[in-house]
Formats: sequence, structure tokens, C-alpha cells
Amino acid sequence: MGSSYGENIRLTLFGQSHSRAVGMVLEGVPAGKRIDLEELARFMARRAPGRNDYSTARRESDVPEFLGGLTDGVTCGAPIAAVIMNEDARPGDYKALSRTPRPGHADYTAYVKYFGHEDRSGGGHFSARLTAPLCVAGGICRQLLAAEGVGIISRIASIGAVRDEGELTVSTADKAFPTVSDARGKEMISAIAAAKADGDSLGGIVECAVVGVSAGLGDPVFGGMENRIAAILFGIPAVKGVEFGSGFAGSALRGSENNDGFYYDGTAVKTFTNNSGGILGGVTDGMPITFRAAFKPTPSIAKEQRTVDLNTMKDAVVSVPGRHDPCIVPRAVPCVEAAAAIAVYDALLGRKKEL
Amino acid sequence: MGSSYGENIRLTLFGQSHSRAVGMVLEGVPAGKRIDLEELARFMARRAPGRNDYSTARRESDVPEFLGGLTDGVTCGAPIAAVIMNEDARPGDYKALSRTPRPGHADYTAYVKYFGHEDRSGGGHFSARLTAPLCVAGGICRQLLAAEGVGIISRIASIGAVRDEGELTVSTADKAFPTVSDARGKEMISAIAAAKADGDSLGGIVECAVVGVSAGLGDPVFGGMENRIAAILFGIPAVKGVEFGSGFAGSALRGSENNDGFYYDGTAVKTFTNNSGGILGGVTDGMPITFRAAFKPTPSIAKEQRTVDLNTMKDAVVSVPGRHDPCIVPRAVPCVEAAAAIAVYDALLGRKKEL
Amino acid sequence: MGSSYGENIRLTLFGQSHSRAVGMVLEGVPAGKRIDLEELARFMARRAPGRNDYSTARRESDVPEFLGGLTDGVTCGAPIAAVIMNEDARPGDYKALSRTPRPGHADYTAYVKYFGHEDRSGGGHFSARLTAPLCVAGGICRQLLAAEGVGIISRIASIGAVRDEGELTVSTADKAFPTVSDARGKEMISAIAAAKADGDSLGGIVECAVVGVSAGLGDPVFGGMENRIAAILFGIPAVKGVEFGSGFAGSALRGSENNDGFYYDGTAVKTFTNNSGGILGGVTDGMPITFRAAFKPTPSIAKEQRTVDLNTMKDAVVSVPGRHDPCIVPRAVPCVEAAAAIAVYDALLGRKKEL
Amino acid sequence: MGSSYGENIRLTLFGQSHSRAVGMVLEGVPAGKRIDLEELARFMARRAPGRNDYSTARRESDVPEFLGGLTDGVTCGAPIAAVIMNEDARPGDYKALSRTPRPGHADYTAYVKYFGHEDRSGGGHFSARLTAPLCVAGGICRQLLAAEGVGIISRIASIGAVRDEGELTVSTADKAFPTVSDARGKEMISAIAAAKADGDSLGGIVECAVVGVSAGLGDPVFGGMENRIAAILFGIPAVKGVEFGSGFAGSALRGSENNDGFYYDGTAVKTFTNNSGGILGGVTDGMPITFRAAFKPTPSIAKEQRTVDLNTMKDAVVSVPGRHDPCIVPRAVPCVEAAAAIAVYDALLGRKKEL
Repeated sequence: MGSSYGENIRLTLFGQSHSRAVGMVLEGVPAGKRIDLEELARFMARRAPGRNDYSTARRESDVPEFLGGLTDGVTCGAPIAAVIMNEDARPGDYKALSRTPRPGHADYTAYVKYFGHEDRSGGGHFSARLTAPLCVAGGICRQLLAAEGVGIISRIASIGAVRDEGELTVSTADKAFPTVSDARGKEMISAIAAAKADGDSLGGIVECAVVGVSAGLGDPVFGGMENRIAAILFGIPAVKGVEFGSGFAGSALRGSENNDGFYYDGTAVKTFTNNSGGILGGVTDGMPITFRAAFKPTPSIAKEQRTVDLNTMKDAVVSVPGRHDPCIVPRAVPCVEAAAAIAVYDALLGRKKEL
Repeated sequence: MGSSYGENIRLTLFGQSHSRAVGMVLEGVPAGKRIDLEELARFMARRAPGRNDYSTARRESDVPEFLGGLTDGVTCGAPIAAVIMNEDARPGDYKALSRTPRPGHADYTAYVKYFGHEDRSGGGHFSARLTAPLCVAGGICRQLLAAEGVGIISRIASIGAVRDEGELTVSTADKAFPTVSDARGKEMISAIAAAKADGDSLGGIVECAVVGVSAGLGDPVFGGMENRIAAILFGIPAVKGVEFGSGFAGSALRGSENNDGFYYDGTAVKTFTNNSGGILGGVTDGMPITFRAAFKPTPSIAKEQRTVDLNTMKDAVVSVPGRHDPCIVPRAVPCVEAAAAIAVYDALLGRKKEL
Repeated sequence: MGSSYGENIRLTLFGQSHSRAVGMVLEGVPAGKRIDLEELARFMARRAPGRNDYSTARRESDVPEFLGGLTDGVTCGAPIAAVIMNEDARPGDYKALSRTPRPGHADYTAYVKYFGHEDRSGGGHFSARLTAPLCVAGGICRQLLAAEGVGIISRIASIGAVRDEGELTVSTADKAFPTVSDARGKEMISAIAAAKADGDSLGGIVECAVVGVSAGLGDPVFGGMENRIAAILFGIPAVKGVEFGSGFAGSALRGSENNDGFYYDGTAVKTFTNNSGGILGGVTDGMPITFRAAFKPTPSIAKEQRTVDLNTMKDAVVSVPGRHDPCIVPRAVPCVEAAAAIAVYDALLGRKKEL
Repeated sequence: MGSSYGENIRLTLFGQSHSRAVGMVLEGVPAGKRIDLEELARFMARRAPGRNDYSTARRESDVPEFLGGLTDGVTCGAPIAAVIMNEDARPGDYKALSRTPRPGHADYTAYVKYFGHEDRSGGGHFSARLTAPLCVAGGICRQLLAAEGVGIISRIASIGAVRDEGELTVSTADKAFPTVSDARGKEMISAIAAAKADGDSLGGIVECAVVGVSAGLGDPVFGGMENRIAAILFGIPAVKGVEFGSGFAGSALRGSENNDGFYYDGTAVKTFTNNSGGILGGVTDGMPITFRAAFKPTPSIAKEQRTVDLNTMKDAVVSVPGRHDPCIVPRAVPCVEAAAAIAVYDALLGRKKEL
């Protein structure tokens, strides 16, 4: 079972790309927390499709309808449940669709896993459409964290071969296209346009920092913050790698270079560097939690690709000319923040049990 | 709570570096499975310390004693419980130890999380010593997978700046120092020796492949194979990054380069390439599951490092002259395999529910 | 967190008595299972209110709308999600309501637990309204069990002081008012009418049998069938006791009387009696699972009761003149079956992992 | 999987009646809690066998050895792990044992569930021997609750047909044979002796109260205190019924009789009566949690009973002349308290997340 996440809160996602609705249930949020629905709408807007020419033309209003859990905008203790109707739901006769799985998509694996009974329309439950309710839950957790002094910022670290420069800061995260270097940002947008013109697609890397987290969150062994954050991040379609702090690059350093020395700044213990990404032994040390998530290039491309017709087992070709993001990365930024918010808020509630 | 893992089996680890014992409980393994204890001992020997000069001088016999779950070497359905006594257990008066947390270790975060009541000796429950019972569980799951035709192989992909060459194969995995290129392997060993001579340490990357897995394992969203494998891999101390298939490098490719086209080989659907690491939408496609885990350099180094005396909050220095691996990577290889075996066997049992 | 149940399937309920909707998400049902929505509607009708004069006058059509998980009435592997809109939802200004908790209800405990932020309308998430989505999930599991040869039957064993006679059989379970003795059934209906006339209410006992279950379901210790069934049954409002087989009465017998001797009937091992309720050591023995659930009298009564005004902490009285069942037991019968179906189907899937 | 319990703490039991040891792992207890090991030993002594002539002659010293989680008697945050060696462990050649399952025992169901690979010696993992590590965990939780002002008391409410009189109080719970009426207690002891003389056995009922619990513990629907307590109580072998407050008897009352009116005593809201057993809507109301657990008569009796030889499928008889309690109820009293302590402490930690 994969549609649930969490230990101290429990998030459950449901729905398919073209079913009646997608939605989420979020259990365990304490009562009495005010949720700012306008701020949530602004957060949701950051992942909404159809806003510019580097994302899919599909437009969904993506306004969550709350079915339970909130009274007058305040949590009442019951599970928070919200749905987003699929305005272009097409519960049609999927049997007429050809059985030529798209490379890089879950078409083939869903076919095997569900014995041919999978919802084949638009990727079914594997669709990136599920990140809409993920962002509802994440947007709520983000607000709950903000009330505890915890902020989440992120940037596009790379798209294709173009890498951003400089250090992630709050002002970067506020940009419409969040790169430190605007020049590099423009290059990224150009690269996306070029790939699109070629009927092709690009991937990239999102970098994220969770700031203001107190020391002591997370558990040893399998309950570490890395485990928790990775376990939810890989739930975002197209994520194929996750690293914390100095990550893969750090594995080439010596201990004397990678270790973060401690000092006391008069109010708190800090580290001179943050190669650990704010996590030691799985537990936060009070420095920002930093991580990077690698997204593969969007598998849906207009170019012809080789596949198999599952009805005949003959060679076939497939191209995906439809409404698809040539690069998912810009819209993935709030999804990464949502995932981080859920994981950190879950750990923060867990910490309360120990106090 | 972080000491448990699994959905269809449940592994619980316990013990500290210098407590009476470390151990594990593994629930959910079906009855009637023969466990070859000699093979398990050979697997355990691969991570045992003190075998050569690039690992710690601490020697532990590391023979698990089974307290329950096996009768005459066959699973009886009860939880499998095993302990490994800590021969050099030192349940001493830790209060006399100075409070100068070692950079890169969990000393400081454990102090905060446990309010100063943490077991300070040898890293307590955060110690890499816990990978011994992890390998007991993983060695068992590895045998259970082998009986289903699933094999797990791995290699050292890099140590420090030295990278292996070529492709991982079974013959590589069988080597005492598992690199494809023996020349590069020797360079790695030299690099470890050089770091050790400098009172310093190195990290590296372990690459692993799970072969023979049938298509259809894993669940969508948070239950994908990436989520499951990452969630356990980050439980191995020093792992700071995990990537599947083409991973971070794949994020710089175009979709037409990264997508794996399908073909039918007469008996099964396969892909020409395996950039997805055998996982699409979280579910196995029948190709090998491939992933890489980045290990940070061992934080324990003889060189002086800056820290804080937590009793006085004054600046301090600390060096760790004791028995420590200058590079954990060679001994981490079986730990990575153990983690992968547990995650994949858990998913394989989950698949049975659907059949 | 209390709104989820299950190990191999996971049921999550959401919504409140007067929120926009109540609903459920049911993860883990294998793909390719046909759900007969008309049969489900008939099952739902058994708990629907307003059908006769011993139940509440509130009428809800109680037709579940499926938002995901079914394509053309067949499970597609995605979580099954359904909502039932609350036609008389009243998301009003609850702050104007007086704070005089009703005895026997969750008003006071919800107030304490949720710090005064509870949804006070109609019992909020504690409302028996939540048994509607429970019956959606249970009705689905009941069909899935039926396809495996497992049936669930039940009867009203007592209402108030009136006890049914004879043995539960299939023909009893099919009755509109399911008692073996029609005479006793009429007495029960009269007793309800008398209590209602007095502005009072009655409780009772529901007896249930799960037939056709193969031996070997359930787990030892905390995973026994008793644990599993009790853990969900107490989720039905007003259940205050659960017993299996000879239960409380059996505790007064001698071992020689209560033990069920074994025999072989030519095809299967059976027991002469079934005082164990089909469960030994938590595991099914192939005989029917039998249990009884005690329901307290409906706490909502027209009679004046003593309470406290939580705003002033002064003595107060409260009476509940509204639309309420004078006896919940008749409508609780399908809820008990739903709970049993969910628990047994969950255990049946768990059994598959071991085969 | 049935050997684990808990949401905010997680208890895992392992071992079999005659395996090397039985034991437990208890995760999630906050660090810095002192455990009084002498008090724990006194608690354990209450369930120890061989103390008098109404219990089994098997003697085990039952001293837990702590392998991890405690340093100098104080919790260090790591999982608390303890084993009790089985001094008369007999890992013998069980294949020679005849296959005639004992009526009322798990012999037959274990045989089916584990495909004949079950540990047949002494009941294996189904043995009441597992209540020893349950009492280790429960004894610890009992101390942790005591530090929060929560006490647990219990009495023998009945044995066979003999019922105790009067109300449970602290002074009753302190007795060696805890009945309010000493006369009735003597009758119970006589009844046990009489059953034993007949080669037979008796069951009974244990009544328990958890006092000093604050209001607000527990969750709605499946997370109610009844669900939680029942889910662990049925893990004690021989428990076949559980009721809270007025329970089954309450189902025969009218609402006006069974409802507990509220009043304010100047410091807290209380109820005049406690028919709800301190739980409304699954959540504690601040009154004592009261419940009763029905134990079936010990299935092991010297009298001949009918069974089947599973090797030949022929009729057979079996008698169990060995060392067995003619009535498990007196020794079950601390087990019931242990179970209640674990469930309530788990809920109490859960409450902290909401504060």
C-alpha cells in the first residue's frame, strides 16, 4: 500500500488523473489551528498547470473543496479531507485505447501490477495529478510549520545541462522562476523551449532548505530525517535521486573537509559549515535541513519511441503529442516543498511526545 | 520511532554500541523456510570488523544467537529473534566522559534529543554496530530472495576521488574488494591508506543491483520501490545520498536519451537501456533494480577538530584516535545488500497479497 | 490517530455529521475485482435512517459517489474512494450553541480533546453518521469475501431485557427484523416503542457469525482475530462489549465443558462444539467465527438529564428532543457485519502472504 | 503480523515457550525516565508460576535481562530490550511428538497456519509464557504512568460460578488473592482445588480500573480507548470477552439509567455514575477507565478429550497431565494490568502530540 504516509500525521492520497476527483485525507493535525485558505490557494497556484509556455496546456482550477476537518477555517480535530474535482474527467471506454506503453511512464508496470485492470487514462493513480492533493496537504503543513518558526525555501538548481550559481536564499525562493542567477534562469527557460521545439523534454534538480528547525527532530536508524524526507520525496513522480547536505559530492571529500565543526554563538550550538544538511544520525542539529532532488526528464515526448504492443507482443512505436510539460521541474518546486513540509511537520509532532 | 522497518515483514533493531548486546526481531517471514546458518555467517563475515588494515581494529565474533523463530534451522512462523553479544560491552560510568561532541557524529544531536540521557558510549544506538543485526536480517532475506530467483550484487563505485570503471557483474561482486577494475581497486586501497596516514578518512559510493526481480513489485506514490529502498538505506550510518538508475546524471539528459524503449525478447518485455533502474512509477518493470548510495567520509578522524564543551559552552577541540575505519565503504557493501534484500523481500511478500 | 484501520487493506474514514460529506478511502484491494454497486446499495439500505418508526426521522439518500478506484465497476488498484454528501449539512455558527454536554455522548470528551475547537454539530466526527462510509467499505469487503466463499450473518440477540431464542441461521439474517423468534422480535419492537413513548431509549446485543472462513487466518498475540475484530467493532458508536464464542458465559464453565473436541468429517477437521467462536490462539480453526457486540442504550433521550454548562461551570439540564433512534440496534446490524467483513478480509489478504 | 502493538510506543514480543528465551522490545519511551528494577521484579513476581498450589508447578525465575535501552536504570532513548531465558528450554526433536491437537489450544490452528512447521513444544509463540515479556513492558509502563499520577488496580471478579461482591478499591488490589470479599476469595480457591481434583479447570473474570487518567486521551472511531485496550487484552491467551463500564449488562438498561450525568466538583467535571467506564466516544472523560476481561477455563486438563490424529486423520483422545494451572485467572491479573498500562501509556504519549 503506497498511498499513505506519516507516523504522527497520516496523509492518504486518492484519485486518478481522469477519475471524478483527486483528494487527500490528513489525520492527526491538532485541533484549533487556523488554516489560511487564501495562502493555501497561492501555494497551490505555484504548481498549477497552464500558467506559462513551459508547462502543459491543461488547465485545472485546482481549488480544493474541504469535506471535513475544518470549521470556519480552523482545524476541529477530525481528519482534514479535501477533494479537487477533475474538470476534464473522462471516465471513458479505455478498452479502446491501444496497449503500447509509453517509455519512462508507469503504463507497463501498472499493466503488470494490476493485471490489465489499471486505470489507463492519463496515468491513473500514478499521474503527477496526484501532486495537487499532495500540495494541499503540504501547503497546510507549511502553514503549521510557519507558526512554529520553520520556513521552507527552494530553487531550481539545474535544468538539463544548465546549472544555477550562488547560494539559495529567501529572496531566490520568492521568484516566479526561482534561480539565484536570473541569467541562468533565462538559459534554463531557453533550454526548455529548445527541447520542446525538438519534441523532446528536460529534467533537472530542485534544491530545498528547511530553516528554523530546532535540534532534536527525527529518530535513529530508519526514522532519521533523511529516511523520512526521502520516503516522501520519491513519491513525487520523476524523482530518481535524493541527497542531503554535501551528498554525492561529499562522498569524494576527506573527513576533515566534510565534517562540520561546532561552535557556540552565545545562544545556540551551530556548525561552521553544513555539509551534513542539518542532520546527524538522522536527527536535526538546528542548522537548516538541505537536500536536492533529481528529476528525470519528462517521459512524455513527441518524438517517436520504441515500445511493444501488449496485445500482439509486436514491436511498435509511440509518440506522446498531447498536453505535457516539456520540463516538470518548475512546477515540481512547490511539490518538493510540500513533501518536505509534511515530513518535517510529522517529525515535529513526534518530538512533542518526548518532551 | 525509528528502529522498525517494513510493511509485510517488520524488522526491529535494538541495542547500543556498548550495551549488553545488539539484536533484531524479524516478524512476518512465512513458516517452513530453511535458513542456512553457515551461509549467513559468511555473509556476516563480509561486514565484520578487524579483517584487514582498512577497517577498525575492534574485533567482534559477530555470531548471532537465535532466541526464537527457528526450529532446526527452519522458520516456525514466530518472529525470528537474534542477538549478538557485545564482547567488549562497557556499561561504565559515562558521566565522567567529557561532553565535546565529535563533528559529523550524532553525539550532539543525541544529547539534545535525549536531554543528556543518551548512551554516550561508542555512539549508543546510532552506532554502525547496529548494522550487524541489520545484516542478520538482510542475510536471511537475501536467502529467501535467492530461493525466488532474486540475486543481489554490488560493487564499490568510488572511494574518495577514485572511481571504478566498467559495469557491475556477478564476478565483480564476488571479489574480496569488489571493483570491476582491480587497478582502480588498488588505487582505492592506497587512497584509504594515505588518508589513514594523515589521520583522516574517506567516503565513497556503493552501487547495487537486484537481479531477477519480477515485474509488478512495489506500490504507487509513497510505496514505490525507490521510497522503500531509500527509507531503509538512509538507516545505514553515513549514507547521505541515494539515486536510482541514471539518477542525478539522468536529470541532465533529454527525455529521448533517458527513456528506456521497450521490446519483447520472446519471453518477456524488456527495455533496451535501464536508466530507470528497473522502476517505473515505483513499480518494478522486470529489469534489474539499480541504485547507488553515497557514503560520507568516516567522521571519526585523528585530526583535531573544532567543537564545543557542552558543560561549559566554551570552544574546544576533539580528535578521535581510537579504533575506527578510515573508510567505511568496503564494510558497508554487505550492509547495502542487506538493506536492499529487506526492502525487496518486503515488497515481494506484499505482491503476494494481490495475486 | 483513530480514523484508519487495517494491516493489509487500510480503511480511512473522514467527515463529520454536518460537514460537507462523509467518506472513506480503502487502500489495498487487489485490482480486477468487480463490485456490484446495486448489491452495495441494498446493503447500505439496511442501515439507512428513516425507514421505519424505530429509527431516526432524518433521511439521507446515502448513495456513495465513487471518486476513484473503480473503473466500470471493477477495482483498478488505486485506492477506492467514496463520499456520501450530507444533504442536510449545516456548517453554521456553532459558537452560538450552548455548551451543555449531553450525557453518554462524546460532547464533553470532544470539547476537552479538541480544546473547544471540536465540530459540535451533530456529534462531529464521533457521529454514528460515520457508519455510512464504514458500511460502504464493509459492503465492498463483504462482496470480496463472498467471492471467496465467506458469508456473514447476524441477528439481534437482545434489545433491552428481551432476548431472542434459538440459533442464528442464514434465514434469520435475511429477515427485515432479524430475530430467530418472530414473537421475540415483536416484543423487541414493542419495547422500543415503549421506551420512545417515555422519552427514553434502549440498547441491545448483536450476534454475528462469519461462515466459510478457512482455517489459518489471523496471527498470534496482538494480531489474533479477536484483537482485529474487537479493534474495529469498538469503532461503532455505542459498542461497549465484545465477546467471542462462549465469551463471558464460558468463563463460568469448566475446561471439560468449554473445550471443543476435534473430529474429522472426511474432508476437514471440525469441532463438536464451537465455544471458541472459531478462533484458537487468535487463528481461525475453520469453524464459524462467532461473536456478540453489546450496544449501550442510545444516549440521546428526550428526558431531562443533569449536566454542566461548560461556559459557567454551573449545573444545568439537557434533553435531546431531536431526530434520534430510540434504539440503534436494528440499524447497527449491518454496521457489525461491515466491521466483521473488513477485519476478516484484511486477515484473508494477510494469509496470502504466507502461502 | 501479530507480535507488535502500539502507535506512540511500539512493543514487540518474541520467543516461544521452549526456545532459548522470550523477550520484548519497547520503542518510543522518552529518554530520562528512571525504571525501578526492584519494583519491576515485584510486579513480575505476581504472574510468576509455581508460587502456590493453584498454579503450575513449572518454576522460572523470570528475571529480565536488559540488553539495551537502559543506562544505570534510566531510559536512554534507545529501544528498551529485555530477554528472559527459558531455563527449561527443550529445543528437542519435536517430530517425535504425536500430532493430536489439544482441544481449546492453538495446536491445530498453528499446524494449519504454519504448514506443520510450527514450534510444537509448549504452545510455541502462542504460549502464555509470552505474558512474561508482556509484563516486563507493562511493568515499565505502569511505573511511567504512576509518575503521571495514573494508577491501575484490579481484582478477580469471578472464578467459575463464584462471584466476588462489593466494589474494587486500592486495598483490594493489594491483596495476594485480590477479591473484595475474602469469603468469596476462599470459595474461589476451593473451587479451583475441586476442579483440579477432578482433572478439570476453571475460567473467570478479571476487573480492572485505571484511575487518575486525565480527560482527553484516545481518538475517535478506531482509535478509541476501548479499541486500544481490547486490541491488546485479546493478546493475553484465554481472553474471550472484554467489556467497558456497564458493558453487556448495560445493554439491557434504558438510556436514562445508563447515561452518566455530569456535575462540576469545583475543580473538574465528573459524572455521578460511571457506566461508560470513563470513556465517551473513545476518549477518556477523567473518570476511571473500568473494564472486565473474561478468561475461558484453562484448556489443558487431565481429563480425556476427543481429538484427531493429524498424521492418520483417525479419531484419538488426548489428556494433558502436565504442569498446568487449573485456573489461569489469579496469575492473569497482573497481565491484564500490564496490557492496560501499555495501552494507556501509549494513548498518553499520543495526547502529548496534540498539546
